[in-house]
Amino acid sequence: MVGSPSGQSIPEATVSRLPLYLRSLQELMDEELSTVSSERLAEMAGVNAAKVRKDLSYFGSYGTRGVGYDVEYLLLHIRRELGLTHDWPCVIAGMGNLGQALANYGGFSDRGFVIAALVDANPDKVGTTVEGVPISHVDDLDDLVSRLDIHIGVIATPAHAAQDVADRMVAAGVTSILNFAPTVITVPDGILVRKVDLAVELQILSFYQERRQAGASLTGA
Amino acid sequence: MVGSPSGQSIPEATVSRLPLYLRSLQELMDEELSTVSSERLAEMAGVNAAKVRKDLSYFGSYGTRGVGYDVEYLLLHIRRELGLTHDWPCVIAGMGNLGQALANYGGFSDRGFVIAALVDANPDKVGTTVEGVPISHVDDLDDLVSRLDIHIGVIATPAHAAQDVADRMVAAGVTSILNFAPTVITVPDGILVRKVDLAVELQILSFYQERRQAGASLTGA
Repeated sequence: MVGSPSGQSIPEATVSRLPLYLRSLQELMDEELSTVSSERLAEMAGVNAAKVRKDLSYFGSYGTRGVGYDVEYLLLHIRRELGLTHDWPCVIAGMGNLGQALANYGGFSDRGFVIAALVDANPDKVGTTVEGVPISHVDDLDDLVSRLDIHIGVIATPAHAAQDVADRMVAAGVTSILNFAPTVITVPDGILVRKVDLAVELQILSFYQERRQAGASLTGA
Repeated sequence: MVGSPSGQSIPEATVSRLPLYLRSLQELMDEELSTVSSERLAEMAGVNAAKVRKDLSYFGSYGTRGVGYDVEYLLLHIRRELGLTHDWPCVIAGMGNLGQALANYGGFSDRGFVIAALVDANPDKVGTTVEGVPISHVDDLDDLVSRLDIHIGVIATPAHAAQDVADRMVAAGVTSILNFAPTVITVPDGILVRKVDLAVELQILSFYQERRQAGASLTGA
C-alpha cells in the first residue's frame, strides 16, 4: 500500500488496474468521447463496475451521476498517478530477440519509457544500434546509469545471466527492475522488481479453451 | 464465470490468479517442499492470504489446519484446471523480433504450449526455421490450423497487420487468440481474445518509482 495524494492508501490491486483504465481511456479519447460510465469503462478494462468506482474513488470522485466520468480529466489524473507525465529513461539488458523486440516496442516510448541505453555481454553486438540507440557493453552499466539518470532497468537476458545483470543494475543505481527472464531474481530491500511471465495469459486462455472443448458452458471471455 | 467441476462458478479474477499460484507451487516443488501455508503461498504469488484460501476453495478444500496445502496435489489440480495436463499446439503469426522471441521462449513449451507452426507474410522469411519449426506463409494458415489441430493463435505482427491475421486465424478455425500487437482486434462472438500489453508492468513500476522519488513512504513492492 502506498499513500495517495489525499492521504488514503492505495491497494496494490488497484495500482495494477490503473494501466487497464489508462488504456481504455486512451481508446475513448481516440474515439473523441468526452464522458464514460463506470459500466462502460469496466467492460473495456475487463473488471466489474463496482470495482471501477471503488478504484477511482481513491483518486477523489470524478464521476457525475447520470453523466459518468470526464474522460480527459480522468486520463490526465491516472497518467499523473502512474508517473507518466514525464519521461523515464530505461536501460534494457540482453539484446537477443526479446531485448530487440522490447527496444522496438512502440508501446514503451508512447508511455514515456524512453529506451536510453542498451547493454549486452556479447562484444559482437556492442557498437551496433537498435532504433538508433547504440548497444553498450554490460561493463559500462555503471557509467550509463549515472550519466543518463536511469532508475528503471529491464532484464531480457537468458535465465542464467539474469541475477548477475540484476546485481550490476542495483550496484549502478537502478532502483526498479522489470524482469522478463524466466527465472526469479533476488534484490536488496528497497529495490522494486516485477516479473513478466509471457505464458500467464496463454494459461488463462487454455483454462477457457479446455472448458470449451469439454463442452462446458462459457460466458467469460 | 465458468462452471467448476464441483458445479460452482469460478470468477475470472480467480482464473487470472491460477497461473501465479502455479508458478509459486512449481518453485516450492523445485525446493522439494511438500506443504505450504496459505500465508506463504500468498506472499509468493503477491496476493493476500484470505484471497488464496477463497480462490482455492473453488477447487475443493485441500488445506489442513496447522499443516497447510499439499504442494504436489495442489499443483496437479491447478495444472488440470488450467488445461495444462496435455499439450496445446499453437501458431505464432509475425516472425519479427517479438515473434522470434516468443518462438524461442522456454516458458511456453514448459507449460505445454507447443509451437506447432509459424507464419509470416514476408516471402524472404518463409522456409527458414526458428527452433526447428519452419516459417510458413500466412496464406497457408488454413491448412496448418486444420492439419495440426491448432486452437490457439498468437499474434506478434505489427499493429497494422493484426486484424487481418486475426480474421484469417478465426476463418481457419482458431478459437483462442493471444494478441501481442499494440492494437485492439475485434473477433466474432465465441472467440476468446486476451491482449498482452508489455508496458503494463512498467507503468506499475513507475507508479512506485514516482512515489519513491517524491519521498513518499513506500511499503508495497
